[in-house]
Amino acid sequence: MDLKEELEDRLKVFNAELTSFLEGGEPEELYDAIRHLPLAGGKRLRPILSMLSCEAVSGSVEDVLPYAIALELIHNFTLIHDDIMDNSHLRRNIPTVHVKYGESTAILAGDLLFAKAYEALNNLNSRIIGRLSSVLTEAIIEVCEGQKLDMDFEKRSIVSEEEYLTMIKKKTSALFRAAAEGGAIAGGGGEQEVESLRVYGENLGLAFQIRDDYLDMSSSMETLGKDIGNDIRNGKKTLIAVYALTHAEGEEKKQLDRLFGKRDASDEEVRVVYQIFRDTGSLEYAENVAKRYMEKAVESISILEEKPVKQVLKELARFAVEREK
Amino acid sequence: MDLKEELEDRLKVFNAELTSFLEGGEPEELYDAIRHLPLAGGKRLRPILSMLSCEAVSGSVEDVLPYAIALELIHNFTLIHDDIMDNSHLRRNIPTVHVKYGESTAILAGDLLFAKAYEALNNLNSRIIGRLSSVLTEAIIEVCEGQKLDMDFEKRSIVSEEEYLTMIKKKTSALFRAAAEGGAIAGGGGEQEVESLRVYGENLGLAFQIRDDYLDMSSSMETLGKDIGNDIRNGKKTLIAVYALTHAEGEEKKQLDRLFGKRDASDEEVRVVYQIFRDTGSLEYAENVAKRYMEKAVESISILEEKPVKQVLKELARFAVEREK
Repeated sequence: MDLKEELEDRLKVFNAELTSFLEGGEPEELYDAIRHLPLAGGKRLRPILSMLSCEAVSGSVEDVLPYAIALELIHNFTLIHDDIMDNSHLRRNIPTVHVKYGESTAILAGDLLFAKAYEALNNLNSRIIGRLSSVLTEAIIEVCEGQKLDMDFEKRSIVSEEEYLTMIKKKTSALFRAAAEGGAIAGGGGEQEVESLRVYGENLGLAFQIRDDYLDMSSSMETLGKDIGNDIRNGKKTLIAVYALTHAEGEEKKQLDRLFGKRDASDEEVRVVYQIFRDTGSLEYAENVAKRYMEKAVESISILEEKPVKQVLKELARFAVEREK
Repeated sequence: MDLKEELEDRLKVFNAELTSFLEGGEPEELYDAIRHLPLAGGKRLRPILSMLSCEAVSGSVEDVLPYAIALELIHNFTLIHDDIMDNSHLRRNIPTVHVKYGESTAILAGDLLFAKAYEALNNLNSRIIGRLSSVLTEAIIEVCEGQKLDMDFEKRSIVSEEEYLTMIKKKTSALFRAAAEGGAIAGGGGEQEVESLRVYGENLGLAFQIRDDYLDMSSSMETLGKDIGNDIRNGKKTLIAVYALTHAEGEEKKQLDRLFGKRDASDEEVRVVYQIFRDTGSLEYAENVAKRYMEKAVESISILEEKPVKQVLKELARFAVEREK
């Protein structure tokens, strides 16, 4: 099965809906600012996940579209605010919102996307607005908590693997979980179906984030559209870093302590850190953990009825850990 | 009637509910940051307005409390983000959230309060969650648009009175309107009642904001708990400034053009601007416009059944334009 081909039609439907939802608005500069990132592409994993989950329980895609829009807007709102906090200059190969529009407008653009997400929910069938709003809201709260943990971890020298996993469960997985769970609810899924997709979403999110950290670490700027070396210079506690910091020894440990989180590290120093990550087996370790979560995700949907979309969900899980960008 | 005495019991009920709603949470520093401003006091005008509106249509206060909480959290989220954008250091006589917790945590604290507001809505009767969520969401969107206009106006030399009024209608009135309208909906009000309270809230908001600008301009830091002279140094287009900029002549006009919006203006220069505001009759003009909106607010609720709470709403409108802080 070619995943890209399978998803193509759904992506088209979603992107058309998103573009139309974000049209117009005044003051124009503010609305330009909220369109900047969401209309610059992105994988649309969360909306796609909600659509697939809806279909997996025999729901129709139209029933979940407003929720899919809300998910993508929330995701983009968090990216815009995170980029301010991390002072990132590039995303999706274009300048971040605060770089292009200034920080005040970027804060406001994030806020407006947040509000527009709830506006989108009002287009749902009124029977399920309350429930989906609640699922989404709880996820957003976790995303905020997770982002705070992530920032706090940067200032600490040691973070345990358990702490790291708690952090990404909140910061990333929560919204994947809400996507799958909400999609199943919108599709009229039974209790067991909703639960199995919820677990799928959570594990998919974990696998995805670990792979994301891996790619941030190893990809060139061209491939990923983000600042290279940023995570190393910021001392970001990814699973790779967490593992390396607890497993490096001797000279490598000393170099790691000196260079990891060094704000003004040279490109050469960034490469030294990267080499230590490789030598300590940290990259491989992270890959294996990601694979384990991918397998858990696949297992969790075994109770779902066999149909083509179930196969797509399985492929999506594999994509999360095998993708190169 | 003594308004303060009338509102005392409602305030107690609301503050207890708010304190309990904001209890606990991890990471602790983030939750401390979201409690910092809302638990430092404030007039609670929006929740009080929603409670009074609910009672005015014979609803019970319990029915509207979750919505009242949401309104206050949204208000505080906007203050936290606005204070970052305006670089304000003091509010309610304490350091602003970004001064105390740093900018990143302050952005995040605003985001979390936003999400917690929608969490509060989930405690409403499920019949009205969708409708109240929609009323609140539309108001938040306007608040964002209004804040953008406000910032853009600071960079412009001339802003018309009409533009100013459009701006505060969005930035401030929208949430007052949502408070009154939502309160009436939660109280089970009829279509006409909801509409009359909606109009009341909008006009109250306008009167309140014009008075607020006036007080910011004229009060000492001790009285108001905000940085004095900030609005003048930032070139903030209040109604007073808008009027003065179009009515000052000769030497006064020249001084105004030179000093209004001068970032590093001395305290003496701030006083010169203030004196021009006084001499051109701008302060008096703004007071009169505020009074007109107050009267519109009072008129708009004439169709409501006569009962004590209606008198409280009238007193509240008078308070909006007569208050000294």
